[in-house]
Amino acid sequence: MRTRVTEMFGIEFPIFAFSHCRDVVAAVSRAGGMGVLGALYFTPEELETELKWIDDHVDGMPYGVDVVMPASYEGADLGVDSPEELVGRLQSMIPEGHRKFVDDLLAEHGVPPLGGDAEAGKVLLGWTDATARPQVEVALRHPIKLLANALGPPPADVVEQAHAHGVKVAALASTARHAVKQVEVGVDVVVAQGTEAGGHTGEISTMVLIPEVVDAVDVPVLAAGGIGRGRQMAAGMALGAEGVWTGSIWLAVEEADTPETAKNHILAATSRDTVRSRSWTGKPARLLKNAWTDAWESEKSPGTLPMPLQFMLISDALRRIGRSGNSSLATFPAGQIIGSMNQVRSSRDVVFSLVEEYVEAMERLNRITDS
Amino acid sequence: MRTRVTEMFGIEFPIFAFSHCRDVVAAVSRAGGMGVLGALYFTPEELETELKWIDDHVDGMPYGVDVVMPASYEGADLGVDSPEELVGRLQSMIPEGHRKFVDDLLAEHGVPPLGGDAEAGKVLLGWTDATARPQVEVALRHPIKLLANALGPPPADVVEQAHAHGVKVAALASTARHAVKQVEVGVDVVVAQGTEAGGHTGEISTMVLIPEVVDAVDVPVLAAGGIGRGRQMAAGMALGAEGVWTGSIWLAVEEADTPETAKNHILAATSRDTVRSRSWTGKPARLLKNAWTDAWESEKSPGTLPMPLQFMLISDALRRIGRSGNSSLATFPAGQIIGSMNQVRSSRDVVFSLVEEYVEAMERLNRITDS
Repeated sequence: MRTRVTEMFGIEFPIFAFSHCRDVVAAVSRAGGMGVLGALYFTPEELETELKWIDDHVDGMPYGVDVVMPASYEGADLGVDSPEELVGRLQSMIPEGHRKFVDDLLAEHGVPPLGGDAEAGKVLLGWTDATARPQVEVALRHPIKLLANALGPPPADVVEQAHAHGVKVAALASTARHAVKQVEVGVDVVVAQGTEAGGHTGEISTMVLIPEVVDAVDVPVLAAGGIGRGRQMAAGMALGAEGVWTGSIWLAVEEADTPETAKNHILAATSRDTVRSRSWTGKPARLLKNAWTDAWESEKSPGTLPMPLQFMLISDALRRIGRSGNSSLATFPAGQIIGSMNQVRSSRDVVFSLVEEYVEAMERLNRITDS
Repeated sequence: MRTRVTEMFGIEFPIFAFSHCRDVVAAVSRAGGMGVLGALYFTPEELETELKWIDDHVDGMPYGVDVVMPASYEGADLGVDSPEELVGRLQSMIPEGHRKFVDDLLAEHGVPPLGGDAEAGKVLLGWTDATARPQVEVALRHPIKLLANALGPPPADVVEQAHAHGVKVAALASTARHAVKQVEVGVDVVVAQGTEAGGHTGEISTMVLIPEVVDAVDVPVLAAGGIGRGRQMAAGMALGAEGVWTGSIWLAVEEADTPETAKNHILAATSRDTVRSRSWTGKPARLLKNAWTDAWESEKSPGTLPMPLQFMLISDALRRIGRSGNSSLATFPAGQIIGSMNQVRSSRDVVFSLVEEYVEAMERLNRITDS
């Protein structure tokens, strides 16, 4: 297959795999696609370890890193560079009623408390300038080929920095207007992501969004949201995309370090078992729908807090839920495509079956017009 | 183009155009697609007039009729065959607080009252067995080729009746499970409709839904939701559909009798200006987002009533809003594709540009794999 994207990165298939798991990233790149490591959950030190591992296991194939530098968040105007100081300033902005709501919810579901305080980096994650910039520094010390940014256009100086290292920059967009802004700051590839995608997502469906974005920008567009099979990849390309960006389908592959409870949830879920909710980060994100997301929509809910306060509020709760193995509250980002994921396969198998079904879809399409 | 659907109906292009306007239906069928008249708003006598007109103007090309026989609605268990009696029984189930909410909302927006009572058929529309069955009787007296049903599987005896007349039956499905049930009662074609579609719609996006439905049933599937351009038609076919079902794109064509205010709204709207709301019929439907849909989501809202009570409650208000020319409250079903509709064209032009862009998309797709 050949598009501007396969040329740009020297890859065989224009299949981008977003994953927080280094094994998946390396396996997809080795299979001819392009793995992209989500840096969000890692401290700079941890990220260094992960990327070193990928360098050692990717056989020289190209890969990328995804950071989150939201265009807007609470505390962005404080001008605080130290994560520890930022956490301190922000903690006081979390209302007591919200803390009580979370504590009561966990008590109701029998989730025991945890000892010890979490480090600042684990409470803020990479959701602020203060925490994401050090990740960028680490990433650019490795032979990455792509730096992707979610939640708005990346800061112009970060784009320049990446380009100076010969690294292409991608950004996620959920409207054509956002895509135009991203290209204005120098983004090389737009990931147009429909509402059916997992994680932070807009309201427009992939079917409607892709042609709008393709018509609005000159750079290549990747289709994201609802893409997990070759037919969907072919559909994304038919819409005008030059490649696809996938996420949820890598949650349940052999290599994924997704907790067992979550993997089982995903394998059992239907495409109706997700919901767009602010209960994870304060910005709308598609999550597995369960008692957690329901509680935040209930009458008792105090409402969610703006990013990054919401995650600060719940980070401890998420760790408690994870350790308890409680399956009714364990929520996480997941797209509607999880309805199609019913077996655990290797990352390589997933790449190849995407390509195989893509080729079948093309043959079928050609029969429709040739006859 | 050739699929089981073009064979089944003897049409040149597998493009189905749902419209409440007879002119659009006839124009699309004459252009090589298949017009389908939405019967919902017509009394049996009016429907007879419309179909007679189509027969006289369709040049012998095939066309269809769409009725709404919901699988469930308030009053379905009363066993009342007379629309007048049914309206009488149902009126008492509408709470006074709801009537006051609607009156206050219209007063707030300066919409004047109307004189006279509406007929029962205009209050219930075709949303009950009592009102839709007479429409079916009328439709089957005309040379229609397709009877389509929204909101669940059609009653088995209606399917038999249609088949006895040599008429194929289609039904709209928003999940694979619904599609299977529809095929079980004898449906010949499944219209798999994604959440981005206008009107009554489910939660799963077209991108995710179509392969699920195609894999679940043996009959041909039409892709619906978000389809208004040839690239989207190609995407729908890549997903496994054998044709496309379109609706919103016919609201603003030359032939459409859509009120001027509504047409202007559609031309100006972006793909973010719709919302899935129960405020029209009591079941979730995607509507143009405006002061009307906002009011039903507001804190003052008494909540919506079940079908058909909600429309009974608001039918008079909708007529008042329509006559007043008030544009802030004039809501109507519309899909996300309205963001792409920025000019008024003839129905024939829309059909031909769908086909033209479809062919371009295919050429582009083949270049990607051939190179």
